[in-house]
Amino acid sequence: DGFFGRWQRRNATGTLPHCIAQLQVSGALDNLRLVTGEATGEFRDMWFADSDVHKTLEAAAWQLTSNPDDERLRAFVDATAALLVKAQGDDGYLNSHYTVVKPELRWQELHYSHELYVAGHLIQAAVAAARAGVGDDLVAVARRCADLLVDRFGGADAPPGIDGHPGVETALVELFRVTGHRPYLDLARRMVDRRGHGVLDGERFGSAYLQDHVPVRQAEEVAGHVVRQLYLLAGVVDVAVETGDEELFDAARRLWDDAFGRKTYITGAQGSRHRDEAFGDPYELPADRAYGETCAAIASVHWNWRMLLATGESRYGDELERALYNAVAGSTSEDGTNFFYSNPLHLRTGHDGSHEDAPSQRLPWYSCACCPPNLARLVASLHGYAATTDDTGVQVHLYSAGAVRTAAGEVVTRTRYPWDGRVELDVTGPVPFTLALRVPGWCAEASVRVDGVPVDVRAEDGYLRLHRDWSDGATVTLDLAMPVRVVTAHPHVDAVRGCVALARGPLVYCVEQVDLPAGVVLEDVRVDPTAAFEPTGLPGVPVALTAPAATVPPGDDALYRTDVPEPAATPFRLTAVPYFLWGNRSPGPMRVWIPTTTTG
Amino acid sequence: DGFFGRWQRRNATGTLPHCIAQLQVSGALDNLRLVTGEATGEFRDMWFADSDVHKTLEAAAWQLTSNPDDERLRAFVDATAALLVKAQGDDGYLNSHYTVVKPELRWQELHYSHELYVAGHLIQAAVAAARAGVGDDLVAVARRCADLLVDRFGGADAPPGIDGHPGVETALVELFRVTGHRPYLDLARRMVDRRGHGVLDGERFGSAYLQDHVPVRQAEEVAGHVVRQLYLLAGVVDVAVETGDEELFDAARRLWDDAFGRKTYITGAQGSRHRDEAFGDPYELPADRAYGETCAAIASVHWNWRMLLATGESRYGDELERALYNAVAGSTSEDGTNFFYSNPLHLRTGHDGSHEDAPSQRLPWYSCACCPPNLARLVASLHGYAATTDDTGVQVHLYSAGAVRTAAGEVVTRTRYPWDGRVELDVTGPVPFTLALRVPGWCAEASVRVDGVPVDVRAEDGYLRLHRDWSDGATVTLDLAMPVRVVTAHPHVDAVRGCVALARGPLVYCVEQVDLPAGVVLEDVRVDPTAAFEPTGLPGVPVALTAPAATVPPGDDALYRTDVPEPAATPFRLTAVPYFLWGNRSPGPMRVWIPTTTTG
Repeated sequence: DGFFGRWQRRNATGTLPHCIAQLQVSGALDNLRLVTGEATGEFRDMWFADSDVHKTLEAAAWQLTSNPDDERLRAFVDATAALLVKAQGDDGYLNSHYTVVKPELRWQELHYSHELYVAGHLIQAAVAAARAGVGDDLVAVARRCADLLVDRFGGADAPPGIDGHPGVETALVELFRVTGHRPYLDLARRMVDRRGHGVLDGERFGSAYLQDHVPVRQAEEVAGHVVRQLYLLAGVVDVAVETGDEELFDAARRLWDDAFGRKTYITGAQGSRHRDEAFGDPYELPADRAYGETCAAIASVHWNWRMLLATGESRYGDELERALYNAVAGSTSEDGTNFFYSNPLHLRTGHDGSHEDAPSQRLPWYSCACCPPNLARLVASLHGYAATTDDTGVQVHLYSAGAVRTAAGEVVTRTRYPWDGRVELDVTGPVPFTLALRVPGWCAEASVRVDGVPVDVRAEDGYLRLHRDWSDGATVTLDLAMPVRVVTAHPHVDAVRGCVALARGPLVYCVEQVDLPAGVVLEDVRVDPTAAFEPTGLPGVPVALTAPAATVPPGDDALYRTDVPEPAATPFRLTAVPYFLWGNRSPGPMRVWIPTTTTG
Repeated sequence: DGFFGRWQRRNATGTLPHCIAQLQVSGALDNLRLVTGEATGEFRDMWFADSDVHKTLEAAAWQLTSNPDDERLRAFVDATAALLVKAQGDDGYLNSHYTVVKPELRWQELHYSHELYVAGHLIQAAVAAARAGVGDDLVAVARRCADLLVDRFGGADAPPGIDGHPGVETALVELFRVTGHRPYLDLARRMVDRRGHGVLDGERFGSAYLQDHVPVRQAEEVAGHVVRQLYLLAGVVDVAVETGDEELFDAARRLWDDAFGRKTYITGAQGSRHRDEAFGDPYELPADRAYGETCAAIASVHWNWRMLLATGESRYGDELERALYNAVAGSTSEDGTNFFYSNPLHLRTGHDGSHEDAPSQRLPWYSCACCPPNLARLVASLHGYAATTDDTGVQVHLYSAGAVRTAAGEVVTRTRYPWDGRVELDVTGPVPFTLALRVPGWCAEASVRVDGVPVDVRAEDGYLRLHRDWSDGATVTLDLAMPVRVVTAHPHVDAVRGCVALARGPLVYCVEQVDLPAGVVLEDVRVDPTAAFEPTGLPGVPVALTAPAATVPPGDDALYRTDVPEPAATPFRLTAVPYFLWGNRSPGPMRVWIPTTTTG
């Protein structure tokens, strides 16, 4: 019944059924039925719409690990797997667009086709099915597809075989992990190494967009299309870890430093430009035109998770948590059936919401529907990110009520996190082991007690480690001090100069028009950064924040002016709500970064 | 030898020959030769590349009014006119792309084809030729083309006939002015009125991009693709003025208030978004991602000129002047052969200049080459914007050394404007008339003397009016006080909060990396808005500005932080140069808006 549990229930009852229904409406399933002869008509939707099917299938497979008795879900998985079995060619090829619309161009336009990207999502669905124990058929389909890729692109003289949209790399490594079949890993490594030599046709979008402008090992900055860059980097880490390639891993670290040190929003969103859905220059982080694609935030979770597993360093968990609780969580409506594709940090008064890339409120579906099923698969697998186990014991990375059962021992967690910083863990285990508890980077003061007795332990790499005999069971109480933080940005972030953001625990807050007194224009609000911000409750908002604030009118309509005296400020009490909840009560202006009274 | 004179000479010796040479390189002339059979091969360049030919031809025609003896230029005009005569179809159709590549789609994809846009530029070239007295052939070609448009789109039952890219409207009105042929005006008016009803296929770009989302008479905000919007509005004013349509003119006024009150950069540039080359929301004016297309600034000059002529109100002259001296002037290199397509107000340290839409320095040509020949035609006709004459006398709108000769009288101007605010005008005339002198909106203190004797006169609608008998000749001395102005933006312009811009006269200034002490990062510079800014000279910069300033390092590398103490400031002497000159000495970071010492 914790935060994750509720999120997963909403996903199971809202998002996932919605996605399944949309697959029918959009034509994505019918496209595959065109291949099998079960449908007639034209190909519909995006040329890579098969990936929506695969992602939804992956979500359903993960969901079945939580709800193994969900018959409707199992029926969807079985029927869809059967459709894919039937739609797959004898050689293993499975792509409805190229099969139906332009079979003669199969593998001929990899810069554009998404064929390997789609194959990657097929493989990911199969990996999920294998781990959920629900889809031998799917694994067989994915292996036939992967074998075809190895056959075509794995040989010494094979063509480069890289896709304009990365994604298949991490899928191949995952399939290697499930099957132990080394050629999948070898192919993923080849793909990583062949990228960056300008082999893709970059005429329309440029080679950075396609992640083909520089070899990964030499790259100094994240660049180009954000989702492409991050999907690639997840695969890079997978390859580096499985092959022990330190040079490659160092490249991932270097690019991480650039991405999270200079090109990430406070919500964890990434992508500063609508044009090309791209990273911007260092510190180019406009709040209003933040692109922050939902899929990019999901990809950030994937990449950070891999970095965390590879290093055990909490800072990767920090960025995973930042993206998860803010950018990812905020992308979905409270009922789970409406979504943001882009995730701005400021919706202006007077915003023109007529563009699908910058709507004024969440929409039920998109012409490019990559995000909703991507959300469904992430949230359905969310429990997998809470904790890990290794030889030393159990590591808890994310705190949510629930139970972790491993060979080493069992950890049952009670907490209201992220609303409260107290986490109680009932720990048992047959032999002594180390319980490692992540102390988030935002937390300046963490304390821990075992059965009520304070323990003097310091975090290393961001983890508090308790090694003991848990055989009699013990209750560990972790207290993460969670004061309201008044955050400023690096001064090179021009877009939010003179502004502060409010945060508490992992949550970033925002101000919505709906909480302002009548007649107050959002852009006129000023906060005193030294004011006492107090937690409070609002209907539907477990912890809102309030503080004295002021509204200051522009004073003059002139766009550019000299010598305009500062108009009088009118005090009022400001309420801020968690960013991830914005737009649920009433669509309207919103902003994360609030100008201060000292700047004007 | 004034500012305009030098600019026009650079245009004549640099930009215009460069454009003529590029027409050959790009294939634009060969495309027309494909039609006439004088060339073989494939169509090259953009599908609307004929317009580059027409714009260059227009520039050449205007230039011949200044240099009637330029034989090479006359030869270009004659040869190109002959080519157009030959390439024109018997029915008057003249468009190389549709004739060569897809004749079956003639007039069938107006949302995309630019056929009317191209026709508009043909007509504009002919109008210039007519006014320059150099091209009877061209006028005949343009009339046959316009007659075809009237024939096809002018009838009561005719299809709507509006182009996805406006421009032909103002051309048709201009052709009406030259020929007195009313059907051209009637067609322009129909086109204006038929627009905004969603008749164009907006699937790819949306109807706002195509200026087909709302009828002009009902529009409340400028929106969509900036150049399309501004070209349309120039035509709207032309139609409103020629038909006495006050409702239509009111719409233009309303949209002007929105454009210049909420959506214009301090440089006069417009277009806040690279995506769709579009206007943004109100006050969405990022300095770094300013699109500010050069053609948009040129279009702003065209629109404001028409508004000024229609109303006599100086504020339109103010915006014309702002755009001209900053956005337009800055788009071209000092040698006249390199150009910006987009005109940002901040080039970040670490900028990735690999994209053609945001290069780090001016480029000699562009894949979409609309801007360079558009600059050539504007600058070649620049003297036409300096002054007007009517029944009351002579109105001087822009100050540059030169002579205006009208039936009412003659005005010879001596001035170093915009470097200096003193303007001396030697005025003569056979009968008494009113000399009206524009007082720019930036000028808080204007005084005027006649033959050394102060005249007590106040500006009305932004003009000082001197009515007298000039038959003996008199020297009018206008002194426009030109102190350095420290400008702030409306507080809703989040992008430049806590920053100031420096301006002097019509010129906006900027800080370039090349003028900073070694080791100082541009983004660390802080100015004291109360400091005394002093004019100074630099090689190649008649008036630079200097003041005490400081460099303040970030203090901490963290992208988001709490409680970072303000690092120590290191004082240094800042130099700012006119924005329009940036990037001429050394490519590198630049910014117009400088954070203040009081904000951090």
